[in-house]
Amino acid sequence: MNKHLLSINDLSAEEAFEILNTASELAKISDGPMKKLPTLRGRTVVNLFFEDSTRTRISFESAAKRLSADVINFSAKGSSVSKGESLKDTAQTLQAMGADAVVIRHGASGAAQRLADSGWISASVINAGDGTHEHPTQALLDAYTIRSKFPQFNQSFDGLRVAIVGDILHSRVARSNVLLLTKLGASVTLVAPPTLIPVGVADWKVKVSYDLDSVLKEVDVLMMLRVQSERMANSFFPSEREYSRGYGLDITRLNSLSKNAIVMHPGPMNRGLEISAESADSHKSVVLDQVANGVLVRMAVLYQLLGGATLIGEVSA
Amino acid sequence: MNKHLLSINDLSAEEAFEILNTASELAKISDGPMKKLPTLRGRTVVNLFFEDSTRTRISFESAAKRLSADVINFSAKGSSVSKGESLKDTAQTLQAMGADAVVIRHGASGAAQRLADSGWISASVINAGDGTHEHPTQALLDAYTIRSKFPQFNQSFDGLRVAIVGDILHSRVARSNVLLLTKLGASVTLVAPPTLIPVGVADWKVKVSYDLDSVLKEVDVLMMLRVQSERMANSFFPSEREYSRGYGLDITRLNSLSKNAIVMHPGPMNRGLEISAESADSHKSVVLDQVANGVLVRMAVLYQLLGGATLIGEVSA
Amino acid sequence: MNKHLLSINDLSAEEAFEILNTASELAKISDGPMKKLPTLRGRTVVNLFFEDSTRTRISFESAAKRLSADVINFSAKGSSVSKGESLKDTAQTLQAMGADAVVIRHGASGAAQRLADSGWISASVINAGDGTHEHPTQALLDAYTIRSKFPQFNQSFDGLRVAIVGDILHSRVARSNVLLLTKLGASVTLVAPPTLIPVGVADWKVKVSYDLDSVLKEVDVLMMLRVQSERMANSFFPSEREYSRGYGLDITRLNSLSKNAIVMHPGPMNRGLEISAESADSHKSVVLDQVANGVLVRMAVLYQLLGGATLIGEVSA
Repeated sequence: MNKHLLSINDLSAEEAFEILNTASELAKISDGPMKKLPTLRGRTVVNLFFEDSTRTRISFESAAKRLSADVINFSAKGSSVSKGESLKDTAQTLQAMGADAVVIRHGASGAAQRLADSGWISASVINAGDGTHEHPTQALLDAYTIRSKFPQFNQSFDGLRVAIVGDILHSRVARSNVLLLTKLGASVTLVAPPTLIPVGVADWKVKVSYDLDSVLKEVDVLMMLRVQSERMANSFFPSEREYSRGYGLDITRLNSLSKNAIVMHPGPMNRGLEISAESADSHKSVVLDQVANGVLVRMAVLYQLLGGATLIGEVSA
Repeated sequence: MNKHLLSINDLSAEEAFEILNTASELAKISDGPMKKLPTLRGRTVVNLFFEDSTRTRISFESAAKRLSADVINFSAKGSSVSKGESLKDTAQTLQAMGADAVVIRHGASGAAQRLADSGWISASVINAGDGTHEHPTQALLDAYTIRSKFPQFNQSFDGLRVAIVGDILHSRVARSNVLLLTKLGASVTLVAPPTLIPVGVADWKVKVSYDLDSVLKEVDVLMMLRVQSERMANSFFPSEREYSRGYGLDITRLNSLSKNAIVMHPGPMNRGLEISAESADSHKSVVLDQVANGVLVRMAVLYQLLGGATLIGEVSA
Repeated sequence: MNKHLLSINDLSAEEAFEILNTASELAKISDGPMKKLPTLRGRTVVNLFFEDSTRTRISFESAAKRLSADVINFSAKGSSVSKGESLKDTAQTLQAMGADAVVIRHGASGAAQRLADSGWISASVINAGDGTHEHPTQALLDAYTIRSKFPQFNQSFDGLRVAIVGDILHSRVARSNVLLLTKLGASVTLVAPPTLIPVGVADWKVKVSYDLDSVLKEVDVLMMLRVQSERMANSFFPSEREYSRGYGLDITRLNSLSKNAIVMHPGPMNRGLEISAESADSHKSVVLDQVANGVLVRMAVLYQLLGGATLIGEVSA
């Protein structure tokens, strides 16, 4: 694995599966009485968040603390960034303070890459969401969740059918999932109104549909995206009610899914908009598994980027 | 003890004294050179604060860290809650991340109960203040403080005379204290202008007085409440000066108290409004003991809700 | 060393060098595989910040955590301070909660001294910047950085020539540096437009110049100050461009420095205003060393104020 995790493109299919396997190992250990491992004792993980995201920040914080790392939360709100300090100076400051890994969340696409490539910093950089670009650990935790529900796809996702539904245009979650799922062999269909499909979609190895109902019966995994009202400066659909009628997952649509199909959502959900409360809470929903797996997968990523000793060796120590 | 601590009604008198006894044990240990115990190593305590309260948050954070738990602070400001996420989703997220206890502070009465009863979460829930309803750890730390000053009430508060003075109507502190002190056997008098006495007070086992001066000589404990200007949308008394004249603790009133009487306040104090600076700093004031005891009592609560091994066994390990 | 670190005046030259020597010891240890020392296990350090300063807060937080202390961050934003609580009550609360050291940042000159002298608190108080008064750990880390670049000044700064350039009037960094550098024996020149030189400068053992160019060739250390637009209610210079032309460090001026001279800046830098990007990133710049040394020097200060056992003894334990 590379030194950084900036994009799903940084990973081969083998490396991606290796992260999932490490997370599986960690899941076994986490079931025991001691949830905390000494693996990263003495290492410092900085959460550098230029956008608010309590859920993602807490997930990384939990992951790092369970590996015994020290965690420093750096929110750009009220920091010297707002006094005119550049990303460069902030990065160099974290570097000089001895950060071993920087988890960065930023509103600008490419910010994580820029941080890693600049030479400003020798720490490992983990992209926790950059603009509308990527959110690789979200895709990894989604893949982990899928695999845990479909053991037949343990070594490859060949034959797995996934539909990703909603605001593809603004979604870094969609982009990272498309890259990872197709890399692992899955067949992916994007479902959205034409205004929410990115122009460059022809380059992706995916099918596109504007009709959710025609897709439902044919999928193993239905991944609903969050409607990100805050990113929609212009109006991309006539009204929330109309969006919901065309692309929301209500109980009728839920019942059209095949028996073993699962429903995913990266959270936080807009209940009643892209997903009904009944669907969100149904036994097909794996939304909470996604959250729990998020901690495991982020532990695996931190371990693979920073860890020296073997995981098992550390555990038995 | 139950799995949660939502209300003083969750506790029998025996269970309440058991918490105080545990806190006494912890006080002895805390006097030694090592203030930190390994009791909750590997456990995660989440502070889920929908209202700002730095003092209460820090008290719980200190308590959890002294027991070696990991602490994650979740402030609802700027979180996905403000993006439309429900309490349910937030709770499930914390659950999925492996929280062992959730300390919740919320502006709505009943929020802690709702969280605990919903089935959304298997963690222990501790109510750190919900609307105008309850704040049980405050009442426990007040009882602990009283007992430490009046050893004759070690096993029962029978015969102890307490006056609670001020904004009873909006005070969860008053409500929790009334419930606990009467349960332990104390005789409680509420003192306030009629507008600040709740309608349902007839159901409580308390006396009511509108005249502070007539009560002063008759009490062992004078508990002054904070005037919560931020909760008073309407005006409940003519002016701050008038309130202070009728119900504030000035030096004359302080001197009317009996020799061994103590003065309490849950903090933060409005010096010059409900309590004069001289009274706040007098030798009768136990305000700082309350703060210090808050950490001990919260350690005791966390230990009783989460701890497996015996406290002493853990300490000697 | 005293119990507190409020001002450079609290330190003799010998005590200052002792802190630098301790930091040097810590630097050697930090190069090893285990960056974390058990020295302050069980001790609590509170960061009490009434002004935002993410960089300084993180530096102290890193320092305390590397010594295994528990750290509690107390930001006065949204705390009970904004509900009318006095510094006194806040201090007493921290005291009662068992703080061993309070690192205070405050907008009012003298706040740290007031906290330490009041008798409200028995914890050690460390001044992390009070108004326009002092910022002693910044001066110590600057001295450490200078010494590491000029080993000939290991025991004394006699003969070292330092120019401090810019907004002397509003700079606590300048004040603390003047006090420390002259105490250690250095010759200091202040360079600024007349409006930014404090009235009381005649009492300091420094030279004053209004002409940066005439000073450049004669210094070993050029310390550029931040232009603090946020403190400049009135206008102290005609325009930023004019300031930059007269007192900014551009590449021409950088090249006028003597071969071994170094450039310092306390950060965060206004690139293009008081310092050009080229100068900030040149090999003469030791800005990043300052940041890294900040953690070491703050570890040394915490260790000397709080630590009982010898540093080496602790390390080998």
